[in-house]
Amino acid sequence: MPEEIIELKGHIIDSLILSKVLDTIMEMGGDFEILEFEVGKRKTDPSYAKILVKADDPDHLSEIITELRKYGAVPVESDEVRVEPAPADGVCPRGFYTTTNHPTFVKFDGEWIEVENIEMDCAIVIYPEEKRAVAKPIREVKKGELVVVGDRGVKVKPPERPRGRTGIFGFMESDVSPEKPTPTLIRQIAEELEEHRKNGKIVVVVGPAVIHAGARDHLAWMIRNGYVDVLFAGNAVAVHDVEASLFGTSLGVDLETGEPVKGGHSHHLYAINEIRRVGGLKQAVEKGILKDGIMYECIVNDVPYVLAGSIRDDGPIPDVITDVMEAQKEMRRHLRGATLVLMLATMLHSIATGNLLPSWVKTICVDINPAVVTKLMDRGTAQALGIVSDVGVFLPELVKELKKIRNDGE
Amino acid sequence: MPEEIIELKGHIIDSLILSKVLDTIMEMGGDFEILEFEVGKRKTDPSYAKILVKADDPDHLSEIITELRKYGAVPVESDEVRVEPAPADGVCPRGFYTTTNHPTFVKFDGEWIEVENIEMDCAIVIYPEEKRAVAKPIREVKKGELVVVGDRGVKVKPPERPRGRTGIFGFMESDVSPEKPTPTLIRQIAEELEEHRKNGKIVVVVGPAVIHAGARDHLAWMIRNGYVDVLFAGNAVAVHDVEASLFGTSLGVDLETGEPVKGGHSHHLYAINEIRRVGGLKQAVEKGILKDGIMYECIVNDVPYVLAGSIRDDGPIPDVITDVMEAQKEMRRHLRGATLVLMLATMLHSIATGNLLPSWVKTICVDINPAVVTKLMDRGTAQALGIVSDVGVFLPELVKELKKIRNDGE
Amino acid sequence: MPEEIIELKGHIIDSLILSKVLDTIMEMGGDFEILEFEVGKRKTDPSYAKILVKADDPDHLSEIITELRKYGAVPVESDEVRVEPAPADGVCPRGFYTTTNHPTFVKFDGEWIEVENIEMDCAIVIYPEEKRAVAKPIREVKKGELVVVGDRGVKVKPPERPRGRTGIFGFMESDVSPEKPTPTLIRQIAEELEEHRKNGKIVVVVGPAVIHAGARDHLAWMIRNGYVDVLFAGNAVAVHDVEASLFGTSLGVDLETGEPVKGGHSHHLYAINEIRRVGGLKQAVEKGILKDGIMYECIVNDVPYVLAGSIRDDGPIPDVITDVMEAQKEMRRHLRGATLVLMLATMLHSIATGNLLPSWVKTICVDINPAVVTKLMDRGTAQALGIVSDVGVFLPELVKELKKIRNDGE
Amino acid sequence: MPEEIIELKGHIIDSLILSKVLDTIMEMGGDFEILEFEVGKRKTDPSYAKILVKADDPDHLSEIITELRKYGAVPVESDEVRVEPAPADGVCPRGFYTTTNHPTFVKFDGEWIEVENIEMDCAIVIYPEEKRAVAKPIREVKKGELVVVGDRGVKVKPPERPRGRTGIFGFMESDVSPEKPTPTLIRQIAEELEEHRKNGKIVVVVGPAVIHAGARDHLAWMIRNGYVDVLFAGNAVAVHDVEASLFGTSLGVDLETGEPVKGGHSHHLYAINEIRRVGGLKQAVEKGILKDGIMYECIVNDVPYVLAGSIRDDGPIPDVITDVMEAQKEMRRHLRGATLVLMLATMLHSIATGNLLPSWVKTICVDINPAVVTKLMDRGTAQALGIVSDVGVFLPELVKELKKIRNDGE
Repeated sequence: MPEEIIELKGHIIDSLILSKVLDTIMEMGGDFEILEFEVGKRKTDPSYAKILVKADDPDHLSEIITELRKYGAVPVESDEVRVEPAPADGVCPRGFYTTTNHPTFVKFDGEWIEVENIEMDCAIVIYPEEKRAVAKPIREVKKGELVVVGDRGVKVKPPERPRGRTGIFGFMESDVSPEKPTPTLIRQIAEELEEHRKNGKIVVVVGPAVIHAGARDHLAWMIRNGYVDVLFAGNAVAVHDVEASLFGTSLGVDLETGEPVKGGHSHHLYAINEIRRVGGLKQAVEKGILKDGIMYECIVNDVPYVLAGSIRDDGPIPDVITDVMEAQKEMRRHLRGATLVLMLATMLHSIATGNLLPSWVKTICVDINPAVVTKLMDRGTAQALGIVSDVGVFLPELVKELKKIRNDGE
Repeated sequence: MPEEIIELKGHIIDSLILSKVLDTIMEMGGDFEILEFEVGKRKTDPSYAKILVKADDPDHLSEIITELRKYGAVPVESDEVRVEPAPADGVCPRGFYTTTNHPTFVKFDGEWIEVENIEMDCAIVIYPEEKRAVAKPIREVKKGELVVVGDRGVKVKPPERPRGRTGIFGFMESDVSPEKPTPTLIRQIAEELEEHRKNGKIVVVVGPAVIHAGARDHLAWMIRNGYVDVLFAGNAVAVHDVEASLFGTSLGVDLETGEPVKGGHSHHLYAINEIRRVGGLKQAVEKGILKDGIMYECIVNDVPYVLAGSIRDDGPIPDVITDVMEAQKEMRRHLRGATLVLMLATMLHSIATGNLLPSWVKTICVDINPAVVTKLMDRGTAQALGIVSDVGVFLPELVKELKKIRNDGE
Repeated sequence: MPEEIIELKGHIIDSLILSKVLDTIMEMGGDFEILEFEVGKRKTDPSYAKILVKADDPDHLSEIITELRKYGAVPVESDEVRVEPAPADGVCPRGFYTTTNHPTFVKFDGEWIEVENIEMDCAIVIYPEEKRAVAKPIREVKKGELVVVGDRGVKVKPPERPRGRTGIFGFMESDVSPEKPTPTLIRQIAEELEEHRKNGKIVVVVGPAVIHAGARDHLAWMIRNGYVDVLFAGNAVAVHDVEASLFGTSLGVDLETGEPVKGGHSHHLYAINEIRRVGGLKQAVEKGILKDGIMYECIVNDVPYVLAGSIRDDGPIPDVITDVMEAQKEMRRHLRGATLVLMLATMLHSIATGNLLPSWVKTICVDINPAVVTKLMDRGTAQALGIVSDVGVFLPELVKELKKIRNDGE
Repeated sequence: MPEEIIELKGHIIDSLILSKVLDTIMEMGGDFEILEFEVGKRKTDPSYAKILVKADDPDHLSEIITELRKYGAVPVESDEVRVEPAPADGVCPRGFYTTTNHPTFVKFDGEWIEVENIEMDCAIVIYPEEKRAVAKPIREVKKGELVVVGDRGVKVKPPERPRGRTGIFGFMESDVSPEKPTPTLIRQIAEELEEHRKNGKIVVVVGPAVIHAGARDHLAWMIRNGYVDVLFAGNAVAVHDVEASLFGTSLGVDLETGEPVKGGHSHHLYAINEIRRVGGLKQAVEKGILKDGIMYECIVNDVPYVLAGSIRDDGPIPDVITDVMEAQKEMRRHLRGATLVLMLATMLHSIATGNLLPSWVKTICVDINPAVVTKLMDRGTAQALGIVSDVGVFLPELVKELKKIRNDGE
């Protein structure tokens, strides 16, 4: 019966790592023997396990080891990473290693080096002279670059449970609790935002419901006051924001009275046309056409934004990046260094953002549809919080709490 | 080809009545000829139509006429209503007429008399000596009472579109618009509540999410200030309300901090036990055990409540009516005279309430689940409003608007 | 700094028990030291941990220990259980122990005895002479019975991960995977049902959508062929089943053509009236009135059923238990010995059933609404499977697979 | 008090047109007098109404008239259409007319000419020499082209209720009935598909759930047998289809056993890499790499497909159009002549398709999420059918019914 010895280190008990390793072996029909086990006696001590894994045949064993690597297990006798040159631009060699969103290391030249720009579903390219390893989407791999093949010599560091209380964030949970007292939760989110405003980088991903639901001024306030370091959205958000500025309506509905107005169904097209006429949002601000709102605040406060195109778009306005791969690249660039991502009422942009994030970035997702929240939470993120709520009442309450914090701070 | 002449009167065009009559004839494979048509020239004038309906055979014709009656169509040659005695207590004669929730009239002794206590899915009992007709659930019909059989001599008056603007309420719509600016809508609902507080009767139907989501104090404020004339709920609402009062938690979650507290999972059972110990909610208030919250405000402000049992209940507390038919009877009694029903985050109690309501009572339904809202709207109610939102943020905003109105009024 | 030593035994690593114990201590702000740790070397070996728990003060320590007990932790120096007499019928002494749905033991007279009829949210009554301990809902406790108070001397055995593969069931998961190949899943459910038909007891909980959606014949087939040992439902299921039998419609919609039929809106009331007239479902079968369908198959195949009342009910038919506490009692009685519960498109009855089940009974829940499925899964059940699907297509496919199995078996 | 006379013609009663006109006048605070009314006496006869509309001031009147035009109302004294030249490429003159998705006519040179390629949210460009009018998205308007401005001289023909039964399709309904017998509905959909296969053009819009849910073979069968004239999808559908072909998995889950397989998480990236390596799907078919499935059947049966990019995409494969405006253009081109659109489990692509469709094309939408179905139905489509169901069981049942029809036809 073929066997291999693996090692695990760190807070492997309360971070569920050891549990998942044993679960995986059993679920895949393998067997195990725990050879050594040193338990971290105190809360801050790491633990250590050395496990003998057994399987029916060598293939089966290799399958199991491949799965275990996702949880940070490494064979004791760790080989060097294997590489092969990419056969063409945007094409990887067969059997290339595909990344997770956890911190990842490759054993190269006898040393463990960390993979840069880690993100799920990428390949790893090795630059031997610089001793660097970089995660890259398939299409960005260049012909001849050395791509890691197989999983030998690759080590993943899955998220560890933070020591002490986790606060509003769940650890590795995809659960959404609709039975929490919302006002309390909102106060805690406000505190988190304040913290990241001072010492982090906040990315806010926004869907058009924010405007339809009447929370445009509140998001604008957040931008003006530093709670948004980057804004991701689509054409619709910008268009309805401009519509609100020019006509006081969103999709033709008066934001003051809630009633549809005369010819209001044309307003979003007129908004698009007006922005196209002057050449873009920045020009519209400069010419005094666009005087308030979400996009206005981004522009006058130098908050960068990425407006990514979709096949649903009318127009679009010139600021929208219509090539989705270009848009993805811009999003990726702006996500570097993010510490908190706030996703508000958009499935498409939130999922796209989630795909590009390393697992250690905190995420908060607010959507009226529980299925969207669940889907967004289900990414193995170390610290995530999902809230099923209506942005039209959520954002006003959030801003109220942020204002309280600012007043208390004075 | 058999044929029959029917008549329609009232605001039959904009109330969609004539459209539905013609649609029904075509959908059922019949044919028609419009013999007379006088259109209400001005907005307030009623219209009149006399229509010849044709069908393949007498049965088919009678089927079509039966359907058309739901829209208020009456054969020109209107017969007397037919009655048969009930064969036993709680049993109707075969082929008895089943009611809609619209105003209904029966032709008895040459006169059209209005059916009292109209409610959907009832039988009509005629009291010949008093010249009265009363809608009754099957089980309340007594042996020997005269029950209307067939639909001859029965006339229904479907809702007419109100003249002028309908405001926030849709006419005969089951649509739910999630793309309305919520703050605006809430202001308008506040105005509606204020109006019915002064000149109507407000029934509020409540689910336990109101407490879990942290809006308990807000609902208590509404009771204290006269916005609730009757409260319908289940055991869970009362239990979690008492739990919040005694322990500051809801299902063991601290309503201040949002965190689960020590032994909190026992709290709702301890709340039940405490109320059972003293004999009921009123006794708990009298003994100073229950000092605040939803049930406390009902009791000290003499707002009647109906707590209806369900098979999910723990306990229950003594105030809960465990026999569902008794509970239904109490709900029916308290709904007499209602002008506005506000349904908050409960499917079971809201649907039960909806079943007992005549079609002219205004209803507002708030739920996080769009499917619940749609289901509740889909009852042919003349004026209904459905909102997909989170009660935990909706009620605080509503109370804020109600307070504004009160301050403005001073 | 106060401290206490606790013990844990069993498959505490892969069953997540140890992880949750450490997580709880940290989340509650306590500290720990692992004094002894013997790991089960092989898959079938149990592990053992002795942990020193520390807290700020004695109260804090006792809070933490209380929480840890839920995961099976027991203080090494285990006291006898404490009891107090119930002060009145249906009232427990203050601070009584409230049960989980896991196997539970009490230390009485120096011995650990298992609590009978375990079910969540009950009290434990001790019969000293018989050395028995029984879980009882509050209202069934009699004056003077000895009720366990506090958690000293109580030990819980949380579910352990089954050794080997768990198949379609998730272990302690509340996740619902909508991205599984449904046909494959259905085949595996069919195999599971076949297994429990032969060697278990299958309880099926049914909502009226089964009939509206056109799957009535398929459920009838399952009853006829032994896949239903007990049926739980409400008035609506029975009424629409009878309606389908007498009129071929469900809520007035022809089940063959999908179109509403003449006077169809009266059919469910006529069905109710007919069953009330003859005195009940059994009488309707005996008199040859009810000749097919779900209730018919239950009656002729001696499959017991519980029809529990709700405030939404029309009628109801005489078989319905209108007192919800009586209905709950009947459900509880029929759940004894259940090995598999299949919940089909009903939230109310499924949740009620879930509340009465011990954690080791397998459950499968099918509903079109993901929120319902998630809610039903979230009960700490050892083996549960949630499927978001439409019963109208799910049941026909399930029956197809069951037939295949039967043919293969011949 | 300013007033204007408008006219309405056609089946204006049962098509709800007259009702909506009167409703709109009242909702907007106007008044009316019906000057003439000739009612179509028989089912096939058109009706005619001449209505005097009154308002507070000329602006208010013009607002009302603008709204009424959407329902086909035309001022009796109809002016010529007004045009202005486009100021730049992709920019319209201010106040340009924005289209609905209904048949539209402009009065030009004394004649009513029909607008070609009608689609919602476009501008109308007039080619005076050819006497043609064409609907164009803003960005396709060229500098100097004559664009219709204001709504004078524009006439819309809203959908009329089909004479006779409407079958499974609702007329102008956004309701979704989850309480229909699904098997019956599926049979009727099969009949509809068969009809359009013979005498129409069927566009099928597909989301990846079709593959995850195990219905890939069934959709492939439909393509092979002529039930798909055009396929719209995204990168994910093609990738998972290729993954299923190369590895037998979908997102790493074995489609036979429903269990995740070794290294399965890499499969979709390997599928992408393989297609990128050979240059595209067609090349993969030619080289014998792709041997079955959805994309294979499209290619060997010459069924055109549009794969539109999105920011969520991994890869993508070379067949995907990454510029969303290019993709939209291709979709628009392939939708010409469509008679039936079947939307299966995709929100993004279905909404995008819906936006491009004239109101007379029949649409059937199947999704597990009722909110998606409702949103897709809510487009004023004359004949639409929404079904909340699981494609994994829906498509197998649909193919079963299609096969029955084919056998019966032989």
